[in-house]
Amino acid sequence: MKRIISVCGSDGSDEDLSSYALQTAEQIGMLIAQHDAVVVCGGRGGIMEATCKGAKKNNGVTVGLLPASKQEANAYIDIALPTNLGSMRNFLVVNVADVVIAIAGRWGTRNEISFAKILHKPLILIQGTGGCVDSLVQNNMVTNSPPCHIVNSGKEAMSKALEYLK
Amino acid sequence: MKRIISVCGSDGSDEDLSSYALQTAEQIGMLIAQHDAVVVCGGRGGIMEATCKGAKKNNGVTVGLLPASKQEANAYIDIALPTNLGSMRNFLVVNVADVVIAIAGRWGTRNEISFAKILHKPLILIQGTGGCVDSLVQNNMVTNSPPCHIVNSGKEAMSKALEYLK
Amino acid sequence: MKRIISVCGSDGSDEDLSSYALQTAEQIGMLIAQHDAVVVCGGRGGIMEATCKGAKKNNGVTVGLLPASKQEANAYIDIALPTNLGSMRNFLVVNVADVVIAIAGRWGTRNEISFAKILHKPLILIQGTGGCVDSLVQNNMVTNSPPCHIVNSGKEAMSKALEYLK
Amino acid sequence: MKRIISVCGSDGSDEDLSSYALQTAEQIGMLIAQHDAVVVCGGRGGIMEATCKGAKKNNGVTVGLLPASKQEANAYIDIALPTNLGSMRNFLVVNVADVVIAIAGRWGTRNEISFAKILHKPLILIQGTGGCVDSLVQNNMVTNSPPCHIVNSGKEAMSKALEYLK
Repeated sequence: MKRIISVCGSDGSDEDLSSYALQTAEQIGMLIAQHDAVVVCGGRGGIMEATCKGAKKNNGVTVGLLPASKQEANAYIDIALPTNLGSMRNFLVVNVADVVIAIAGRWGTRNEISFAKILHKPLILIQGTGGCVDSLVQNNMVTNSPPCHIVNSGKEAMSKALEYLK
Repeated sequence: MKRIISVCGSDGSDEDLSSYALQTAEQIGMLIAQHDAVVVCGGRGGIMEATCKGAKKNNGVTVGLLPASKQEANAYIDIALPTNLGSMRNFLVVNVADVVIAIAGRWGTRNEISFAKILHKPLILIQGTGGCVDSLVQNNMVTNSPPCHIVNSGKEAMSKALEYLK
Repeated sequence: MKRIISVCGSDGSDEDLSSYALQTAEQIGMLIAQHDAVVVCGGRGGIMEATCKGAKKNNGVTVGLLPASKQEANAYIDIALPTNLGSMRNFLVVNVADVVIAIAGRWGTRNEISFAKILHKPLILIQGTGGCVDSLVQNNMVTNSPPCHIVNSGKEAMSKALEYLK
Repeated sequence: MKRIISVCGSDGSDEDLSSYALQTAEQIGMLIAQHDAVVVCGGRGGIMEATCKGAKKNNGVTVGLLPASKQEANAYIDIALPTNLGSMRNFLVVNVADVVIAIAGRWGTRNEISFAKILHKPLILIQGTGGCVDSLVQNNMVTNSPPCHIVNSGKEAMSKALEYLK
């Protein structure tokens, strides 16, 4: 059975999404694939697409839990799973994960972070990527204690994730 | 068809839940019933129970969208709907509402607030009740602009809710 | 807490739906209300609407678990709960019930009947109403043994249901 | 993006499950993998396990949409997705598929077949495998007309499936 890392973050309509956040997502995708884990995400654009793009660079496997139809999938999704659950699919993205990584993000990402907290999932927030991740960290609304970790880079995020994949 | 107000907030296991928050919930329940709207909630203890208790004082109707079984319902639930959806039911609590009111709360309430934002539901936060509601308000993580409203009392919350029930 | 009887059957687009099936549904609705139980259904036309119409004649309470939006509710629904689950809501219609009654029906009703069997819910099929109910009975695909009952009229269905509501 | 074939059928607790049905499932799994499609199923034993076993013989990819936890997955599941949806996950098994194949089965399989009909999914029933598939076919409760096909072997099922994967 493959290990699963779910990556949450803004879709492509987020105008505040930085190049740094996207590069970090792509790096995370490459690292997940390199360690033979599967990328799960909401299957759409922005952070999700960048992560999948990275994973495919290293021949990884990408799964998209889509709101409604396969047509919504980004170009790097291998296994497109249309859920018909709309934003309720956020629960699935988190529930299936061995580790959840959050990058930038808006209300959808906050929703996924809250599900991670409710479900006591290992959760890694990459600060410096903007959006709700930075906002939650700066306002001390998440604490840096297991199984929640605030890290400073994609590389550090992957190191922390690996502790939970052993 | 009845109008529906969903009330979100901590369950009975929240040790930080104040008497003021519970009194506010009970008052909201009374006001919802007085205005012939239906209370929908997650069906359990704490804020949910206090709201239902208030509603029943005025012969209101209370609906509980429960995580797993009817046995979880508080004593003031008329219509207990076990969803088998666990915390995914938070989506339903928000989606069925004409207006969502949040009081105190922890990660489950944050989850419901984020669903309200995602679904563009009228959302009313009663500040001064503690928990995630106060934390979100104090850190300017929600703005006081329609359809999101930050109010100071149960009475003010109901006045605002009525604007959306016309 | 109110007892809940869920009623399943064809929506208004079923051209084979007989007057007898609709009259039976209306009678069932009247009887459910008379015995102070709540009608739950998929909230739309046909059998669902006839049942709700009957319930309202006796001042009963009707709940509609709708596929997508409140606008889909028939005119006799008191509490319209849009689930955003599409036909997955069939599970909820069955899961929340103390007893499930099926009248006529097509694939949606077969879907609900199969959920009733999976969940070991008390299930009452009113034969003579046509559709999948008659087809399942005639082909011996359901057995008349507790908690599944094959009955011949609305009145008999309610008598049987009451055994489970004691 | 990979094509997805969902395979439905009895789990390992079905005492009427024949060796022929299991062999057919394993053959289907091998053929799906050979044609580079992904096997999706409910992730458990019986028909699901046999299909996954076949797929892995040809280095295919197998996805299990599990009721509750990863521990329920059979030994041949690559990507175990615990849904927390219980039997409501049946909807997902069908909804994500390009083609649905049913073998033997009981009420869970009938549930999935009814979802396939509701969602107008290409559906292939392999007669001769027993259970609800044979029962539905023998009682003319499903018609052999597109997109529903009644076939006589795993090989014929795959040929038919390929018509929809073009």
